[in-house]
Amino acid sequence: MHDVIALDADDTLWRNEDLYRDTQAEFRALLAHYHDPAWIDARLYEAEVRNLPHFGYGIKAFILSMVETAVELTEGRITGAEIQKVVELGRAMIQAPIELLDGVHETVASLAERHELVIVTKGDLLEQESKVERSGLREHFRGVEIVSRKDRPTYERIARRRGIAPADFVMVGNSLRSDVLPVVAMGGLGVHIPYHTTWAHEEVDEEERARHAYVELRSIRELPDWIASGV
Amino acid sequence: MHDVIALDADDTLWRNEDLYRDTQAEFRALLAHYHDPAWIDARLYEAEVRNLPHFGYGIKAFILSMVETAVELTEGRITGAEIQKVVELGRAMIQAPIELLDGVHETVASLAERHELVIVTKGDLLEQESKVERSGLREHFRGVEIVSRKDRPTYERIARRRGIAPADFVMVGNSLRSDVLPVVAMGGLGVHIPYHTTWAHEEVDEEERARHAYVELRSIRELPDWIASGV
Repeated sequence: MHDVIALDADDTLWRNEDLYRDTQAEFRALLAHYHDPAWIDARLYEAEVRNLPHFGYGIKAFILSMVETAVELTEGRITGAEIQKVVELGRAMIQAPIELLDGVHETVASLAERHELVIVTKGDLLEQESKVERSGLREHFRGVEIVSRKDRPTYERIARRRGIAPADFVMVGNSLRSDVLPVVAMGGLGVHIPYHTTWAHEEVDEEERARHAYVELRSIRELPDWIASGV
Repeated sequence: MHDVIALDADDTLWRNEDLYRDTQAEFRALLAHYHDPAWIDARLYEAEVRNLPHFGYGIKAFILSMVETAVELTEGRITGAEIQKVVELGRAMIQAPIELLDGVHETVASLAERHELVIVTKGDLLEQESKVERSGLREHFRGVEIVSRKDRPTYERIARRRGIAPADFVMVGNSLRSDVLPVVAMGGLGVHIPYHTTWAHEEVDEEERARHAYVELRSIRELPDWIASGV
């Protein structure tokens, strides 16, 4: 039985990727007099992926990638005031209100009555802690695991520490690559609830999908019935 | 008895603050044609403290504070190339080799034979994980706790989770404010091993020191004898 249910946070419990997309649109507008939008997006994505091993995930890393991209794209002609504007875009992201996704509040509250819930989220420690606190959902979760990567060894470590057999480990999230496939690989149950938009770096091709068996739900509202069906 | 011994990492196991001071010297040199050194230091410190609630501890936060300070101090006249130089200073910090402090390697290896050792470190998740891995000390530690703040509730949570009574909790570190006083406040044992330099934000005044009882050792080499004495 599934005593413990692990849930991803960004784009599973609350909106996240939209915030990055909106900020990126403002960044594009800021640099519009230097380059065309597609070129700006491509170079920013390059910087993000290049910086991932050094700076990791999260808003601070995103700000640093925007700053570098702005300097590169303008060949150093960017002004100090424009750089400050980029940093301000990032600070606004950190302070943005948390918008829970549809059905999250009631579903989480209801699941918490019968199961031990745990958040497993990737990213910046301070940012993720702050979002959990501000979400109003903290009381429903027994624990919060903030990790630097979501791979099979990470999930194995969490299951071991919480005394859960891999076969009993259920992980629910919007990212096939981070939330679902590594859990399926260790013998656990992955539940995929797609979000309307996915960061390119998190995308998985059809062939990779086909090699794994997992459950797909349209909304978190379907989760309690699926859990109760005892699959 | 002290079955578990918790140790701070930065400036307790390896050099850290020196890296910030060295980078700050390079930052000062970069801006030398705009302002005098003392003014640059004062404004950077202001930016760091102001950004702490938003960006937290660690190198990414420090880079962002340097970028902001550079823009402010030059009233936006800073060039894109100079901004890129600031980001590069930060990237070099992230990649800097780990230099263990004198006596750390042998003392940690020896303590690990008789006690369960845990690292308790504040800062950026990815940065701190990477330093622990690169330190060569990982095998000697049973666990690594990376936290966003080191206050009494944080230590209480760690003690509870590891099943240690507060009175049996020993924490060793170079910061009175972060490693020693909150542990003493919860009824545990704080062991202070001063480092030659402390970030201004971590300093504690004489009056505050006098109100708490803790042990002070000159070097980590003195730790095994102090532990063995069964205090």
